[in-house]
Amino acid sequence: MFVTSVFATRFLRVTQRRPDTWPAGAGRPATPLRPPQRAHLHMTATAPTPSALSERERMVVFDSQCFQKERVTLAGVEEYIVRGGRDVFPRLRCAFEGVRTVGVIGWGSQGPAQAQNLRESFEAAGVPTVVKVGLRTGSRSAAAARAAGFTEENGTLGEQMQVIRESDLVLLLISDAAMADSYKQFESALKPGATLGVSHGFLLGHLDSIGESFRPDISVILVAPKGMGPSVRRLYVQGKETNGAGINCSFAVHQVATGQPPTRAVDLAVGWAVAIGAPFTFQTTLRNEYRSDIFGERGILLGAVHGIVETLFRRYRLQGASDEEAFLRSCESITGPISQVISKRGILAVYDDMNTQDRKVFAEAYAATYTPALDVLLECYEDVENGSEIKSVIQAVRRHSRIPIGKIDGTHMWKVGQQVRARRGNTPVDPFTAGVYIATMMAQIDVLMEKGHVPSEIVNESVIESVDSLNPYMHARGVSYMVDNCSTTAQLGARKWAPRFDYNLMQQSFVKIDGGDGGVTAADRQHFERFLTHPIHQAVLECCKLRPTVDIALTGSGSADAARAGLFE
Amino acid sequence: MFVTSVFATRFLRVTQRRPDTWPAGAGRPATPLRPPQRAHLHMTATAPTPSALSERERMVVFDSQCFQKERVTLAGVEEYIVRGGRDVFPRLRCAFEGVRTVGVIGWGSQGPAQAQNLRESFEAAGVPTVVKVGLRTGSRSAAAARAAGFTEENGTLGEQMQVIRESDLVLLLISDAAMADSYKQFESALKPGATLGVSHGFLLGHLDSIGESFRPDISVILVAPKGMGPSVRRLYVQGKETNGAGINCSFAVHQVATGQPPTRAVDLAVGWAVAIGAPFTFQTTLRNEYRSDIFGERGILLGAVHGIVETLFRRYRLQGASDEEAFLRSCESITGPISQVISKRGILAVYDDMNTQDRKVFAEAYAATYTPALDVLLECYEDVENGSEIKSVIQAVRRHSRIPIGKIDGTHMWKVGQQVRARRGNTPVDPFTAGVYIATMMAQIDVLMEKGHVPSEIVNESVIESVDSLNPYMHARGVSYMVDNCSTTAQLGARKWAPRFDYNLMQQSFVKIDGGDGGVTAADRQHFERFLTHPIHQAVLECCKLRPTVDIALTGSGSADAARAGLFE
Repeated sequence: MFVTSVFATRFLRVTQRRPDTWPAGAGRPATPLRPPQRAHLHMTATAPTPSALSERERMVVFDSQCFQKERVTLAGVEEYIVRGGRDVFPRLRCAFEGVRTVGVIGWGSQGPAQAQNLRESFEAAGVPTVVKVGLRTGSRSAAAARAAGFTEENGTLGEQMQVIRESDLVLLLISDAAMADSYKQFESALKPGATLGVSHGFLLGHLDSIGESFRPDISVILVAPKGMGPSVRRLYVQGKETNGAGINCSFAVHQVATGQPPTRAVDLAVGWAVAIGAPFTFQTTLRNEYRSDIFGERGILLGAVHGIVETLFRRYRLQGASDEEAFLRSCESITGPISQVISKRGILAVYDDMNTQDRKVFAEAYAATYTPALDVLLECYEDVENGSEIKSVIQAVRRHSRIPIGKIDGTHMWKVGQQVRARRGNTPVDPFTAGVYIATMMAQIDVLMEKGHVPSEIVNESVIESVDSLNPYMHARGVSYMVDNCSTTAQLGARKWAPRFDYNLMQQSFVKIDGGDGGVTAADRQHFERFLTHPIHQAVLECCKLRPTVDIALTGSGSADAARAGLFE
Repeated sequence: MFVTSVFATRFLRVTQRRPDTWPAGAGRPATPLRPPQRAHLHMTATAPTPSALSERERMVVFDSQCFQKERVTLAGVEEYIVRGGRDVFPRLRCAFEGVRTVGVIGWGSQGPAQAQNLRESFEAAGVPTVVKVGLRTGSRSAAAARAAGFTEENGTLGEQMQVIRESDLVLLLISDAAMADSYKQFESALKPGATLGVSHGFLLGHLDSIGESFRPDISVILVAPKGMGPSVRRLYVQGKETNGAGINCSFAVHQVATGQPPTRAVDLAVGWAVAIGAPFTFQTTLRNEYRSDIFGERGILLGAVHGIVETLFRRYRLQGASDEEAFLRSCESITGPISQVISKRGILAVYDDMNTQDRKVFAEAYAATYTPALDVLLECYEDVENGSEIKSVIQAVRRHSRIPIGKIDGTHMWKVGQQVRARRGNTPVDPFTAGVYIATMMAQIDVLMEKGHVPSEIVNESVIESVDSLNPYMHARGVSYMVDNCSTTAQLGARKWAPRFDYNLMQQSFVKIDGGDGGVTAADRQHFERFLTHPIHQAVLECCKLRPTVDIALTGSGSADAARAGLFE
């Protein structure tokens, strides 16, 4: 079957402005990023299949028939976004025209939220599309789905293969492992011309790693909410009162089935995002989504934080600090005050708030940390990029029947953490900890820039999710609790990469700071200088403005709501 | 071109006795290992190419026209070996019949040793084959080669591509990275029907990982000395006085060029091993060789030792030991007395030597360590098996121009180590350390058994190289020195896997021993019970008997001679 891509058809009239302005430095190769090459059109039988298109080729500016796009400039790069909100709901009629049934497969984290939000948005907008939940026969989730009003009686609950067969848009909202195991079976049931929707690009990563691709006669789109299911639901409900509350989403069109107008898939994707309550949605690709997601949780979102606090706690103890003091200065400082400042006033504000002496400590820690952190992060990104990391997750899951995954929270440090949280007071920002943490965050940002991700995605996967969602969650429950209770993909990643950050900081950064191996060099200090004028600071502040005004942070009870989709399946 | 395999032709008359007797336990799947299936012969145009043969199919018993094979039973498994020694040299005439020139490419670690040993053995045996060294034009090694008697004037030194073109047997003795970069160019210069020889299966691992295979009109063989080049040379020289001194080798025939008698490649491989001085040689496959080699150096040979001593040092310090005491009980205990006992009297002797109280400590440490160590080791083996680890090495080397690989020896622990070594006395065996170390060694042995390696290879890659070569080297110079100065492949592996062992032991094993997470269970203790009657103990003692009687351990000066081929390129 012959496939066209929404993007392939538009290469000749679209250029995307790409960052020629990324900061120079050891964080990136000497060659500047160039604007994407115009691709040649091959609209013949030998046309490249969608998977042969590069990520940049997929990232040309989208066109929508139903929604209005808006230009934003982030870190010197132009991007287009679509704002949602209840006032935009009437446009859903345009977006879902011809879609009689949306099948939602799975009732885990995203399933209940998206199914209910879609149903209620369709109702509010007068869209006649039916939302139907599909589950395995005998699924334990059936009762919950029925309680939410999805029943066999009213025709909105059915056996999953049957629901897939009859749906025009199928949202596959199941775990990564289930996706890898069962995808081919699900795919074979899709009707020709149907659209497959996923909320995480992991499936493409899996197909990449085994050298397969999607059936060519279906469209494939993604909407990735930047929060876990319960948040997607809770903020949507709040949005009924406070217009604009909701969880931001990225969207992507991966391929378009033959004979469908290219903008159809864009409208369906943006419509899906708007209908589940996204205040704004920005464009990515499936591949960039899974890469930044899997990389991000191994990096500053979870794995790097774990490794950083372990190595800092040990360092402070070795320097003579008590258990409690060491924990306050390492873990508490990051998950508490540093995150709060970044969340409210951006990354640079952490440094700006310091006195002269603390700024010196921060600068040295930053300078010595940047390159060793970049070293581990580059390795991690490339392992995600080349499929090794996904292969590793799938193999690890297979070993779990034999050696179950153990918890990490039994060690000395986390017992200290429990005590510290129990009698918590005001924690100050530790300047050394801040330097190490922020240098790692900036190295992650530079890796994502170098690898061609758009600023919206970079800021979400490196800053906003961290300081708005995950760090507050870890502040309430503990880093070890988070690692022990997140999705298998994230859990395995954190356990694999945390010790790598720990050792590289201990063996490289701290040895330099303590004067070994030539001490901190002028080249190291240049990384700190770049930090002061890094274009990402503007992008962080802009993205913060686009966030919902509703507080999605944790309450003291430690509800899991704030954690994002990818981290809890 | 049509290729036959030395093994494919012999399936119908050969069965190899395989281990049905491997010990049962959590270390392996429930299904017992079965004898290899008889393969069907397809001697037609659709015959499987050699790379389509499974490792077991390649491991059928070999036949030799020139040498006498000898049956040994190790850990209940029959293997065949060939003994070398100067009294066998006359048979080299048969093995090298028709081979006019052996080209030795590279003058690093193995090159000088093998080129000189071959030349002298040919001379002693009256073999007319010329040994010719091939180097890049302008190579800095040319002077050293000339000093060893390989000169342009006498026709035994030339430009490497030219030497490849004119040789019947080409020994490619260059670094892993150079192999990955330049192999295709070298291969294209080989004359049809020539034999390619390697001393490490890494090249096959690289080809596997990029989905390529060897040119079908050449034979491919391996001889992997179980010691680094200088040892191969030094012991060969000693062997002129003490018959039987030399470094043991494994050998493999990977493919045989069309038209050549299958036993030809076997005789060439065994002849090569005998000529460089191997007291005995055992059969493996290229794939098993690189898997066990790359896995082994990430495991108990280097990476695991590094992680174990880091985590034990920290544990003993936390329990109140002084720096010096903690170092003695962790690092010194392993690289000193534990290794010496195993080297002389086998693994079980370490436990047998203990008093009742120490045996209890050992047993608990063993029980709690086995599964967490197995967990990391299985992951590591599978990452080597599926090509991820090799891809990771190649990618890391590419990043080194941007971020050079840093040293690990600047941390607190290794400074303590320097002081301890400077005023070294008699170190006792620490029973807790011994339990952790030996449980990890046994878990590695079980992984290799489960993955189908022969006992000779298992014992060499998990025990003998460790206690005879690497631990004594680290005892003289320090673990960090070894990690910082070994081959890039080993160095990257140690830095990647050491922290994984460290964290898994800290988070799983030690938490259990300290009573957390349900404490040490009956299932854990069964691993210790299996240890007491493990069939590998007999194999270790048998293999020790087959070692050269000459002492290859380090002198106090810390010469690098004892380290094996794969670890120093």
